Amino acid sequence: MSYVLAVDVGGTKLAAALVDEAGRLTGYRRMATPSGPYVGADDLWRALVELLDEVTGRVVPVGVGVGCGGPMIWPDGDVSPLNIPSWRRFPLRARLADRYPGVPVRVHNDAVCVAVAEHWRGAGKGHRNVLGMVVSTGVGGGLILDDRLITGASGNAGHVGHIVVEPEGPPCACGGRGCLEAVARGPGLVAWAQAHGWRTGEEMTGVDLAADARRGVPSAVRALRRAGGALGVAIASATHLCDLDVVAIGGGLSQAGAPLFGPLAAALRAHARMPFAARVEVVPAALGQGAGLVGAAALILAGDRYWPAP
Amino acid sequence: MSYVLAVDVGGTKLAAALVDEAGRLTGYRRMATPSGPYVGADDLWRALVELLDEVTGRVVPVGVGVGCGGPMIWPDGDVSPLNIPSWRRFPLRARLADRYPGVPVRVHNDAVCVAVAEHWRGAGKGHRNVLGMVVSTGVGGGLILDDRLITGASGNAGHVGHIVVEPEGPPCACGGRGCLEAVARGPGLVAWAQAHGWRTGEEMTGVDLAADARRGVPSAVRALRRAGGALGVAIASATHLCDLDVVAIGGGLSQAGAPLFGPLAAALRAHARMPFAARVEVVPAALGQGAGLVGAAALILAGDRYWPAP
Repeated sequence: MSYVLAVDVGGTKLAAALVDEAGRLTGYRRMATPSGPYVGADDLWRALVELLDEVTGRVVPVGVGVGCGGPMIWPDGDVSPLNIPSWRRFPLRARLADRYPGVPVRVHNDAVCVAVAEHWRGAGKGHRNVLGMVVSTGVGGGLILDDRLITGASGNAGHVGHIVVEPEGPPCACGGRGCLEAVARGPGLVAWAQAHGWRTGEEMTGVDLAADARRGVPSAVRALRRAGGALGVAIASATHLCDLDVVAIGGGLSQAGAPLFGPLAAALRAHARMPFAARVEVVPAALGQGAGLVGAAALILAGDRYWPAP
Repeated sequence: MSYVLAVDVGGTKLAAALVDEAGRLTGYRRMATPSGPYVGADDLWRALVELLDEVTGRVVPVGVGVGCGGPMIWPDGDVSPLNIPSWRRFPLRARLADRYPGVPVRVHNDAVCVAVAEHWRGAGKGHRNVLGMVVSTGVGGGLILDDRLITGASGNAGHVGHIVVEPEGPPCACGGRGCLEAVARGPGLVAWAQAHGWRTGEEMTGVDLAADARRGVPSAVRALRRAGGALGVAIASATHLCDLDVVAIGGGLSQAGAPLFGPLAAALRAHARMPFAARVEVVPAALGQGAGLVGAAALILAGDRYWPAP
């Protein structure tokens, strides 16, 4: 059996596993991402190396696939994750290539890896034109068209969170205004809900909001309706431009279920009226927490589709 | 020398020419599209055949490429152009294949052909990720990513005119609301300008409006500012999703020049702030009236990029 080492680098956790050709994970390990004022770039690197050594044991992987928070220089794999301040233009791919010589090492955006996983083995399997979305602290995604991952001019295709849904809407962290992410990201939505009567507390997250919406708490339901409407508008735009088969939505907020997907479907129906657009299917992501690792492995195991020669 | 027969079928005119491998047109002919209550599907077909016979003379083309108003069943080439009521599911590709046996016959959306032409030989040449737009009676387009024409699930990718720019905006002919086309299409913009003091008259078109805007007529300038703002928002959305290099804009309204492109650039700057998106170039289309024929020919002459195996 040959295995790919799959790695997921986020601001909250580091995770890794071995992945076989069927997309099955073994040896899964995770740890909280070391952070704080005394954690330097190399401290974080050493922690990651230890984690990877635990995962691989004596196995020599046939390749290393990595999903990492953006932005990054693609395909070089110099990463500057927004939520990992100690890594700025950190040469993650080069460091891993030194450590795993003679095998391919490929690094892509973490939301792109989730989208790839959903196309390869999840809710988008069998479809040629898929948008995968992660609605969580931010709103990210990846775009598969005609059965191939779209990278775009600089590896940044799939930034679905910055489709404009309200030109005069709230300011976005990107510097723009009215982006889908500005409206529908978990923390923004929590703040909006709290301003409209939802229970206060700094610890509240999008997952709590989703849970309350499922229980029918009115202010939470209204917040999810707002997010769903914005998602429906953005998906209509993406479908008109790219003629999609399936949109797969994951991330903490998607756990709300009907309170999110109902308003989403209504907004999409209102804006996507031409037959080709009306037939797009919006479905919950199927792979859950492990999706990022499965997609990172697919960068190696199905490179013909997911790693177009840059 | 071998030639492709290139054909452009629109509600206003039929045009055709022979195109060589360098994209040069010879034998160009055009005629007004026969229309009216007594023009049947076969009358229109016979008029087209006569035009094509004039163009080809004794030349036997190595293929036939056609741009036609949508919608259509792609790749079958059964066409139902909105502006040609006598053709509903007319088997244009099959009829042409009977008439030009043994050579490929390929039919695609006319705006897609313009986008293909701009990528192949025009303003997008040398770039791998290009959105071509036609801003005219409608707003159409075509999408080239990683150097290949994107067809999408049903051949309908590139419907940039239905990116949503104002979720609560004016109703659109597609049945939706607030689409780019609803705001920026020529006739809609003329009506808006006339409601805001521009010269009245039923004969006024987007081209007249563009000319007045260039002369500084205030109501025309305001109308073009409105269109430019909507275009900037739509292009920001498309760039975030697809990571574009270049957007090439043609069609009658684009002749306004600065009164359109200035407000467009301002809206784009306001909404596309991340470095990868801010670097997108928006340029006027380079090929003018013949673009549709050049792109139709490219469906044959550069089929590896522009006619992905369906």
